[in-house]
Amino acid sequence: VAGGEPAIEGTDFGRILAFTDGVFAIAITLLVLGFDVPTKEADVTHEVLNQWPQLLAYFLSFAVIGRLWLVHHRFFAALHRFDAQLLRLNLAYLSVVVLVPYTTNLIGEHGGDPVAAITYAAVLAVAASLNWVIIHYTLRREHVRPAARAAVEQYGSWQGLIIPVVFVLSIPVAVFRPNIAEVLWILLGLQAVVRQRVK
Amino acid sequence: VAGGEPAIEGTDFGRILAFTDGVFAIAITLLVLGFDVPTKEADVTHEVLNQWPQLLAYFLSFAVIGRLWLVHHRFFAALHRFDAQLLRLNLAYLSVVVLVPYTTNLIGEHGGDPVAAITYAAVLAVAASLNWVIIHYTLRREHVRPAARAAVEQYGSWQGLIIPVVFVLSIPVAVFRPNIAEVLWILLGLQAVVRQRVK
Amino acid sequence: VAGGEPAIEGTDFGRILAFTDGVFAIAITLLVLGFDVPTKEADVTHEVLNQWPQLLAYFLSFAVIGRLWLVHHRFFAALHRFDAQLLRLNLAYLSVVVLVPYTTNLIGEHGGDPVAAITYAAVLAVAASLNWVIIHYTLRREHVRPAARAAVEQYGSWQGLIIPVVFVLSIPVAVFRPNIAEVLWILLGLQAVVRQRVK
Amino acid sequence: VAGGEPAIEGTDFGRILAFTDGVFAIAITLLVLGFDVPTKEADVTHEVLNQWPQLLAYFLSFAVIGRLWLVHHRFFAALHRFDAQLLRLNLAYLSVVVLVPYTTNLIGEHGGDPVAAITYAAVLAVAASLNWVIIHYTLRREHVRPAARAAVEQYGSWQGLIIPVVFVLSIPVAVFRPNIAEVLWILLGLQAVVRQRVK
Repeated sequence: VAGGEPAIEGTDFGRILAFTDGVFAIAITLLVLGFDVPTKEADVTHEVLNQWPQLLAYFLSFAVIGRLWLVHHRFFAALHRFDAQLLRLNLAYLSVVVLVPYTTNLIGEHGGDPVAAITYAAVLAVAASLNWVIIHYTLRREHVRPAARAAVEQYGSWQGLIIPVVFVLSIPVAVFRPNIAEVLWILLGLQAVVRQRVK
Repeated sequence: VAGGEPAIEGTDFGRILAFTDGVFAIAITLLVLGFDVPTKEADVTHEVLNQWPQLLAYFLSFAVIGRLWLVHHRFFAALHRFDAQLLRLNLAYLSVVVLVPYTTNLIGEHGGDPVAAITYAAVLAVAASLNWVIIHYTLRREHVRPAARAAVEQYGSWQGLIIPVVFVLSIPVAVFRPNIAEVLWILLGLQAVVRQRVK
Repeated sequence: VAGGEPAIEGTDFGRILAFTDGVFAIAITLLVLGFDVPTKEADVTHEVLNQWPQLLAYFLSFAVIGRLWLVHHRFFAALHRFDAQLLRLNLAYLSVVVLVPYTTNLIGEHGGDPVAAITYAAVLAVAASLNWVIIHYTLRREHVRPAARAAVEQYGSWQGLIIPVVFVLSIPVAVFRPNIAEVLWILLGLQAVVRQRVK
Repeated sequence: VAGGEPAIEGTDFGRILAFTDGVFAIAITLLVLGFDVPTKEADVTHEVLNQWPQLLAYFLSFAVIGRLWLVHHRFFAALHRFDAQLLRLNLAYLSVVVLVPYTTNLIGEHGGDPVAAITYAAVLAVAASLNWVIIHYTLRREHVRPAARAAVEQYGSWQGLIIPVVFVLSIPVAVFRPNIAEVLWILLGLQAVVRQRVK
């Protein structure tokens, strides 16, 4: 990636953001496909009421993807240029975010199974790590607007590693007590929702 | 949410609206996934003709999501700033709207079952209530453009609670006579479509 | 709808077009869900090769939705204002367009069955008719830019009814010879693709 | 297509790009639907771990669609006008790109079957060829901004045919050794990701 890194041109950066927003919007909406309509006419009530784990998983992942999008949106507003490597990292990050509807269905259907909880934790740990890598990369290449640098550095420092580390640490919990890991994420989600700031 | 609430910056607010519009557009289009293609070669005609409840549910929900979007679109055009709490409320609202394709399939497949009608009514009651909360919140925090305040106050007053209240009241109807509740919504939908105003 | 019709404001009209474009883009992409991945390991080749009717239906409907979008895009560029009634008509039109992925799967899976061909023809006849109604309405309410009026009038005249009429006329053909109706549409599609103009 | 070709007008071209970006964003996100949630409660772990071919196919196709989008995005930024024929070619190109989620599921589920690998290679060969045709066409019609002409000519020359030719050549490999063809694409993808440039 030696050579001149282009500064942000209006349309160009706009299309990248629009594409990214589109992927986030679709991924968050596909979460609804996790609910199966009962096929038997007999015990519809029973089957619908039994979908509360799916509903919990749905709201958890809606909050997770929503928060990832908010963070992305806020962070990209702080950039004044981008390069090929950043586009690649952004695509890699999106490829992990798009897995969330699948892992959501997995814990919605098999929440008591360690493999479901481990997969969920692993995908979010990778997403959070890639997010940290992206922030770190743009700081190092000075793609961040000088005025926003201080705010972004907070996320790019070792403090920004807390979220990926929490998800990595929840993996051993998930191995032995998947439900406890899930309750942990929900509490974490609630706390994140309550504390979140704009800008 | 103490501290400075940022005024709306062009791109920022634009991305939030684009994301919201994207979610609405995807949710409304996913409604088509409620129609199953008959798998047996034998009685395709019979199975297709038997899908009229799905078709009714499809048009009902298309009108519902379409109207929710129109209201959202009109309301957000009246804002001149936003804050973190508004973003959170907007995401919470979207998480309920995105459930509509599922509840639509539910009443499309099991319209005679009270649980389907109750779920449908409950989701729309929560969506309409959250919409009222959002309007109320932005009025209280003075996020509404002064020129648009009078128009928005109408929705934020107790009159704006009529729609959520109607959906809540239709829940007991749904318990005993799900089909009557459904006919009621269709009539309500037709009336809303006929009376709706822009701006 | 008595009272002042608002002139187009930049963002407002932009959001309506973005929503409409989003619905078209999603509907056209959902066409791919019509292809089933063979579940048996044994005769994958046979099952994949047997999907040529789905492939034909896919390309036909891709061309159909693509063309409807092009026409919509060109027509809305000719407007200088809109009103509540136009928004309603646009939503009604979209609710029919979104049915196309379903009717496509229907003729892809059961192309030899009259009910599939009739459904396909009926949906497109209604879509084309609503398109004509929209054009007619905007001409009558003088929402069309004076400079573009002559071009739009062509579509809004009885000549613009040719396409819906062709689809209505193909319904009786579909009743007795569904495959002939389908070949007819493909030829019509090819011809439309070849003759289509921008602006 | 005789007659005056219109120069690019802001909104017009913007809507075409937004529609195209939307289709790419939806197609890339639909890739996640390739993962099936195990239905049996018994061997969830086993079934999830057995999905590694789907995961490989998912990341391969995410990189493929992501790269096609990047190329499209970069190329369309170099145009200063468009015409009806270009719109048609763009739609034809998109109709092939949208098939990728299906072919991805096919190699994810039946990677050892030649028909899956052949279908995957064929779809990408056609997409790459159409891309080359589009570039060639815009150069011939002088739709490319003079300043960007040199850069675009590189892709439009016979060198630009390397990628489609590679996919065509991988078809006979796929016939006899589908897995070798798949490993080849993954290596090609990795190399493309590593070398890719912006602008």
